Amino acid sequence: MTDAIADTVRLSPGPVDLRAIESDAAPGFEGKKADGKAALAEMAAELADLQERLWAERTAGSERRVLLVLQGMDTSGKGGVLRHTVGLIDPQGVRITSFKAPTDVELQHDFLWRIEKGLPAAGYLGVFDRSHYEDVLIARVRGFAEPAEIERRYGAINDFEAKLVAEGTTLVKCMLHLSADEQKLRLQERLDNPEKHYKFNPGDLDERALWPAYREAYEIALERTNTEVAPWHVIPADKKWFRNLAVAQLLRGALRGLDLHWPAAEFDVEEQKRRLAHEAPLA
Amino acid sequence: MTDAIADTVRLSPGPVDLRAIESDAAPGFEGKKADGKAALAEMAAELADLQERLWAERTAGSERRVLLVLQGMDTSGKGGVLRHTVGLIDPQGVRITSFKAPTDVELQHDFLWRIEKGLPAAGYLGVFDRSHYEDVLIARVRGFAEPAEIERRYGAINDFEAKLVAEGTTLVKCMLHLSADEQKLRLQERLDNPEKHYKFNPGDLDERALWPAYREAYEIALERTNTEVAPWHVIPADKKWFRNLAVAQLLRGALRGLDLHWPAAEFDVEEQKRRLAHEAPLA
Repeated sequence: MTDAIADTVRLSPGPVDLRAIESDAAPGFEGKKADGKAALAEMAAELADLQERLWAERTAGSERRVLLVLQGMDTSGKGGVLRHTVGLIDPQGVRITSFKAPTDVELQHDFLWRIEKGLPAAGYLGVFDRSHYEDVLIARVRGFAEPAEIERRYGAINDFEAKLVAEGTTLVKCMLHLSADEQKLRLQERLDNPEKHYKFNPGDLDERALWPAYREAYEIALERTNTEVAPWHVIPADKKWFRNLAVAQLLRGALRGLDLHWPAAEFDVEEQKRRLAHEAPLA
Repeated sequence: MTDAIADTVRLSPGPVDLRAIESDAAPGFEGKKADGKAALAEMAAELADLQERLWAERTAGSERRVLLVLQGMDTSGKGGVLRHTVGLIDPQGVRITSFKAPTDVELQHDFLWRIEKGLPAAGYLGVFDRSHYEDVLIARVRGFAEPAEIERRYGAINDFEAKLVAEGTTLVKCMLHLSADEQKLRLQERLDNPEKHYKFNPGDLDERALWPAYREAYEIALERTNTEVAPWHVIPADKKWFRNLAVAQLLRGALRGLDLHWPAAEFDVEEQKRRLAHEAPLA
């Protein structure tokens, strides 16, 4: 299977106009919802194999790891990607870190301090549910930092990510691109369903009222941190099935790109087979 | 569906004789491998619903959480349970902690120090892949601690677990009960398959040679820590499908037992619906 979706959702260099990117499209995929769900299910075995190879390499001293960064407006489906795409992968090899509003202690440090602490170890697929990008998104929209500090952060992020890549991390940065109309529907659904009230709080509507400012903050952040070593992907997210499939294809592409091999045994296999075959009685 | 398996694998009080418990049985389940796999798949939706309720309660201040403790000899299938049973559950709500040989720093503290640090937060399903029980199992067999210290630990574990339960943790303790013959087959398979060599090291055969001592250490530990508030379950583990199904049923039983409810909204739902319906244009 080709990576047709991966190619189409990769963000081109230069200025970003999110209004020019369709949020309810399914670019690079020929098929409907049922086909998309089936295509995702069909990837499970290969994703499992690739993840196990990454894990196995670690036992032989490899420093490689993958970090999936999920960003998007409220209800854009970060949780759905975790459940349906990341959930396909052996949980032993996955580390999810969710970044909420920074704590008082975190605010006393540079914005990357808590991010460093959440990085995946070698052999892992790390997933950031929100990330250091909040520090140039909500921080910009809400004025949580001075303009000069926001300005500094774009470069700091690029330096930070370049260092991660140089150290063996493959970054997969995904912006889940939702329309304001679709968000409205999803918030209405949460309000209409008592089982989903726990996911809602009135502040969500205050954030929504700032939609144009968030779009602008995203456009600036995407443009300025869309580097060669750590490019952005803008994933149309109005269709949940496409969003899940697209992230899965990006993960698969990242793992395939590592050209992972099963490590050779560091012991004499035949000798161990003989030991086991000729062992003394155990009891 | 009843919890027939859960009832049969619960360890009775009193002395434990593992040789008297069949390791290749499927107690409490009428059916073959395909039926067992189907039964596990059928539980996915309910497990997902229960886990989301536990998670939702947390947002309303609940302190409840579940801790699955997995113990068993090498190849008994702790990893398989993580993949096939725990893997059914939304990874956002799961925290897996694997306990390897203690580090130098960990050895400078009481054996429960590192365990405390790995405990799940409220709302989570925590999973221990090996646990504080290693400190009365390998520690006893290999003499890593003085006999008096080992002796002290059984009581310390019971006190510790009673405190966890009192604080809102539901403990599900599972010993994956494998036969020595089945372990031999599984180790042979690892040696025969170059893709599994990374899972093997010659020390595994040294441990296997101590099988009777480990059995005795398990029997003592199971007997002495099989408390009313934190009972043990001995799960026949020669059949992988049964092992996975049994743990799933125990988890479901633990979650059902919490009688979890969706938290009521702490905001005026109708007011928020009106706000959303009558919002100002966003751009």
